[in-house]
Amino acid sequence: MKYKVGLAIAGAFGLWLANSGTAFAQEEISTAELAVAMDTFFLLIAACLVFFMQAGFAMLTAGLTRSKNTANILFKNLMDFVMCSIAFWAVGWGLAYGTSAGGFIGTDQFFLGNVTAEGEVPILASWFFQVVFAGTAATIVAGAMAERTKFVAYLTYSFILSLFIYPVVVHWVWSGYGWLNGGDGTWGFTDFAGSTVVHSVGGWAALMGAIILGPRLGRFSSDGKPKTISGHSMALAMLGAFILWLGWFGFNPGSELAIGSQGSADAVALIAVNTNLAAAAGAVGALVTAWLRYGKPDLPQTINGVLAGLVAITAGCAYVTPVFAVLIGFIGGPLVVLAAEMLEKLKIDDPVGAVPVHLVVGIWGTLAVGLFAAYEGNTGTTGLFFGGGATLLIAQIVGILAIGLWTAGLAGAMFFAIKATIGLRVSKEEEEAGLDIGEHGAVAYPDLSPSRPYMPGASAD
Amino acid sequence: MKYKVGLAIAGAFGLWLANSGTAFAQEEISTAELAVAMDTFFLLIAACLVFFMQAGFAMLTAGLTRSKNTANILFKNLMDFVMCSIAFWAVGWGLAYGTSAGGFIGTDQFFLGNVTAEGEVPILASWFFQVVFAGTAATIVAGAMAERTKFVAYLTYSFILSLFIYPVVVHWVWSGYGWLNGGDGTWGFTDFAGSTVVHSVGGWAALMGAIILGPRLGRFSSDGKPKTISGHSMALAMLGAFILWLGWFGFNPGSELAIGSQGSADAVALIAVNTNLAAAAGAVGALVTAWLRYGKPDLPQTINGVLAGLVAITAGCAYVTPVFAVLIGFIGGPLVVLAAEMLEKLKIDDPVGAVPVHLVVGIWGTLAVGLFAAYEGNTGTTGLFFGGGATLLIAQIVGILAIGLWTAGLAGAMFFAIKATIGLRVSKEEEEAGLDIGEHGAVAYPDLSPSRPYMPGASAD
Amino acid sequence: MKYKVGLAIAGAFGLWLANSGTAFAQEEISTAELAVAMDTFFLLIAACLVFFMQAGFAMLTAGLTRSKNTANILFKNLMDFVMCSIAFWAVGWGLAYGTSAGGFIGTDQFFLGNVTAEGEVPILASWFFQVVFAGTAATIVAGAMAERTKFVAYLTYSFILSLFIYPVVVHWVWSGYGWLNGGDGTWGFTDFAGSTVVHSVGGWAALMGAIILGPRLGRFSSDGKPKTISGHSMALAMLGAFILWLGWFGFNPGSELAIGSQGSADAVALIAVNTNLAAAAGAVGALVTAWLRYGKPDLPQTINGVLAGLVAITAGCAYVTPVFAVLIGFIGGPLVVLAAEMLEKLKIDDPVGAVPVHLVVGIWGTLAVGLFAAYEGNTGTTGLFFGGGATLLIAQIVGILAIGLWTAGLAGAMFFAIKATIGLRVSKEEEEAGLDIGEHGAVAYPDLSPSRPYMPGASAD
Repeated sequence: MKYKVGLAIAGAFGLWLANSGTAFAQEEISTAELAVAMDTFFLLIAACLVFFMQAGFAMLTAGLTRSKNTANILFKNLMDFVMCSIAFWAVGWGLAYGTSAGGFIGTDQFFLGNVTAEGEVPILASWFFQVVFAGTAATIVAGAMAERTKFVAYLTYSFILSLFIYPVVVHWVWSGYGWLNGGDGTWGFTDFAGSTVVHSVGGWAALMGAIILGPRLGRFSSDGKPKTISGHSMALAMLGAFILWLGWFGFNPGSELAIGSQGSADAVALIAVNTNLAAAAGAVGALVTAWLRYGKPDLPQTINGVLAGLVAITAGCAYVTPVFAVLIGFIGGPLVVLAAEMLEKLKIDDPVGAVPVHLVVGIWGTLAVGLFAAYEGNTGTTGLFFGGGATLLIAQIVGILAIGLWTAGLAGAMFFAIKATIGLRVSKEEEEAGLDIGEHGAVAYPDLSPSRPYMPGASAD
Repeated sequence: MKYKVGLAIAGAFGLWLANSGTAFAQEEISTAELAVAMDTFFLLIAACLVFFMQAGFAMLTAGLTRSKNTANILFKNLMDFVMCSIAFWAVGWGLAYGTSAGGFIGTDQFFLGNVTAEGEVPILASWFFQVVFAGTAATIVAGAMAERTKFVAYLTYSFILSLFIYPVVVHWVWSGYGWLNGGDGTWGFTDFAGSTVVHSVGGWAALMGAIILGPRLGRFSSDGKPKTISGHSMALAMLGAFILWLGWFGFNPGSELAIGSQGSADAVALIAVNTNLAAAAGAVGALVTAWLRYGKPDLPQTINGVLAGLVAITAGCAYVTPVFAVLIGFIGGPLVVLAAEMLEKLKIDDPVGAVPVHLVVGIWGTLAVGLFAAYEGNTGTTGLFFGGGATLLIAQIVGILAIGLWTAGLAGAMFFAIKATIGLRVSKEEEEAGLDIGEHGAVAYPDLSPSRPYMPGASAD
Repeated sequence: MKYKVGLAIAGAFGLWLANSGTAFAQEEISTAELAVAMDTFFLLIAACLVFFMQAGFAMLTAGLTRSKNTANILFKNLMDFVMCSIAFWAVGWGLAYGTSAGGFIGTDQFFLGNVTAEGEVPILASWFFQVVFAGTAATIVAGAMAERTKFVAYLTYSFILSLFIYPVVVHWVWSGYGWLNGGDGTWGFTDFAGSTVVHSVGGWAALMGAIILGPRLGRFSSDGKPKTISGHSMALAMLGAFILWLGWFGFNPGSELAIGSQGSADAVALIAVNTNLAAAAGAVGALVTAWLRYGKPDLPQTINGVLAGLVAITAGCAYVTPVFAVLIGFIGGPLVVLAAEMLEKLKIDDPVGAVPVHLVVGIWGTLAVGLFAAYEGNTGTTGLFFGGGATLLIAQIVGILAIGLWTAGLAGAMFFAIKATIGLRVSKEEEEAGLDIGEHGAVAYPDLSPSRPYMPGASAD
């Protein structure tokens, strides 16, 4: 009551009391300040949801691999976010969002020094939102390199990715000064929440890592025939997938970066709906594809279909209508199933399907923006089928190629360097016994007896 | 700072600049617009919490059933939300919230076409909140029909429930035009967050499904004696229960649909407190009841007591004081234990207790509104013990009966139709071997050896 | 649109319409009311995150103990929050936040009677936030007393802690009238989110419980040599740690109690960043320490390092810069490893390391405020290395000692009383067979065969 009267008086007198001091503190807060506070709140909550994706990736990856490597893969999933938090605080954020050197790289704000933003969302809130994105890119690689990578090599790699490789890509696209998307009204590569910037970057690194490592012992028999190596817990995998789906409601809607500013609440609602529909459609797409090809509805394939739907809609979630979210997500389903087959033919061993999900579908989702964008991003252009011509589609292709070359090149060099120095892969004996014993001198489930002897390529099939 | 000065000027000049264009964008946002943005934000976050209940139901149901059926039950829990997302987008929402035909059914807004809301919470945000509710109703059935239902039958059933059976009930009660509650000031059935609309609808379908399917092999011996079939993981069940408890803080408080509008923050706080107290009281009620009857504190019974407390308070969480939330929740505890005994006597096999929790306690919670409502809902009436006479209680009974007849009738017809066409139950051989092998050609835990041979009715007791 | 025009008119006429009735409802809401609504929303969401820590503690504690005790430890983790909810509703809140009797104890608001707050965050929202804090203090003890405590004794203890021991400490520090911190501008003990008030209180009770109970059978051999007893699931432990890390983003930022009021959004962002950085630094600290001392990177130690970082920054998260958050968190890492060694030397058996994490590091975090506080709390003083002199550091030491004496004294008396009456520890036979069988007549994983016979002190090492 007292507040209403106070504001009425303040309104009549032109709100001249607005800056008169703390006695009037609550009455004087402006709607613009409230909008900023609400945006900050929104960004922090979205960041919490994205942070929780770390648990999702950990459970998914552990569930889809064998129990003799469970402690190791969980440990890696924990440590990549730990290393990322330190690296992105010290250097990564500055390279991504510091003052631009030619649209290529940021040059200040290291260790979060000198970061103030008057009347805007605090830089620290933005950092928190960005660090969990960086952590996502880093953690994607763990799955593709699971069950054979040295722990120390993994620590090194995830630190470098978060420190340098990923932040530079962010600068190119999201800094507002990048050469791929230089801000309002410019022609440019458009990736709303990171189908390419996050997922394909993780996916490219995952692909290079999987190739350079080579397949797990027993994954391909001596005559080249592939053998399925089943993951040890569908319960963990399913839990992980649900957590990831949940986290994506922070990942995509949060990338609007605002909800109190005008129009942003509508945008956030559209993004949330598109995200959910694409996930569901991706599940249907993968379920049907795998069912037709293999004769049974397959849970791990359908889980990857959910993730494919989510990755696919990430680039365009703010720009397409729900009908096209369903289409884009659905196509992700068959893509992820077929890409996994292709990898297997190429004798590339990706235990959890990280490359199909994050790289292949990440590319698809990024291209889809160029095809189906009905609403303009900051470039003022719609997609090919929505009256925008080929401009946006070409920008998407340029961005995909540039970021792919950068990431695959640097990640490849990094993995070769690691291989040549500290070593990338554990010994044959250690791989057979399990990395839990070899790397950590412990097992994940000491109370439970294994049903299969720990031998190369043993599987439940 | 600049914002404050800007607003001061705007106030002095009667805010005539308010519509003058984008250059003044942030300064001009009104408190009404901010309240709508905050309500939208609130609804989306609440929806995320309710979405996460899908993971809760999946973990709970998997934990309370045997490991030979774990992949199958997880898969069903995933797919019911997938099917629901598609069905509720295409048709369900329109039937629930489209233009009313006689208070019985909605008739437009299919595929989310033509949905705009000026100056209000975006329709898409409301859809997102409603689809996760629809998903909850659908997933309840999975538990009661676990360990013996065909995968294809399950997909079919969950699609139909989300497409038609559930949305019509929503229209009757929550659309603002329904024949059971036609809006402000009318006499009517009052179910704040869905003890009946969501939980009893799921519970009625679960009951019909469990009856038509028949009990699991070995659940009752040839002489009719019941045998307990223990769930395979108390850790998953407990995790699921905690996730559900968490999700209910979206389910109930979110049903206020607003937090920025006047009075709604107080309402939301009351609802959150009532929800938590009822859950705790339900746990105590079930713990004590089971302890007295069976001689030991029983974890699965107490978990169901938590859920009973939550279901019980769902209808009345906004209308009762905390003391009565404790009472309503507490009574849910013994109810859930005794209803499970009753089902067992009737030889109805409900592996996780979905019918006691969601149907029996859902009815109790709905009646409790008629008894203990201290604050008026949109009907302007309080409960029998709070000066409102029997009006509300009678409305509750009418609603419970009408919705029960509708749901049990249609769900029963649906399950019989499925049974007569594609078949409802797996073969005896498949049930014995486990649905994971039979339906999906895989097992959930290939690394771990089962301690009991997979035989009908095997149990740890 | 209509809202903007409405407000423009309202502004021109001095908002004299502001109180004219409900027809104008949305237009008239003031920025002060919106700020309060936003603070309420923020507090409720933060409370949900902290609530979820119950699941985190349950998974962590279950994962770090043996499978023969899993149902029992999960059950205890559930029941401590259940008992806490009832106790803190009936009595605890009133003792903590009721009208102060001499700064020592609150004296009214029992059963949440007579709680209204005009123009402020609703008392019920504050209760919801505080009850989940009380639940955290209670649940910490479960880990230290795991695998040997009677179920009834546990129920009794957790009820008393939430009813009396913890609320009085809250009154001393956070009520605004307490003798340790009496409000704005006073000299006083400063613990922003509860390194001492929550974590050390839990930790002191855990220490007293572990001492009075004695070690588990087989934990120390007859010649006094310690034997490691491995937990049964690294997957559950890791999941629990991720959930706890997530929950801490409610625990610390939520303790600002506001985000819409001026300046609070900046504070909340700083707290979130500090919390994340300290967790990461704590992980590094423990990883490196354990690696150096034991020769291998150790997952459980690193998990405890994450928690140590989080506990360490809890007291000072709002007062220190990110660089010092990294330092404070990092030091938590070695502390937790070395404190666990110390406990082992003293033959105190704390199965999950609750005392090192919550008590030892809780003390460290509280002292660190006195050393590194760069921003003033409500006492207007900074730390020793930031120009504030020793005043704050002395206050911290006084608070640590006073709260330690209170809690250790009362908890010790309580455990002795329980021991002398209903008994504190299960029988030797029950402990060997597992508390799941002995207390609940069930096992947590009936489908899975144990790999080690259930014998005292059996371990996987």
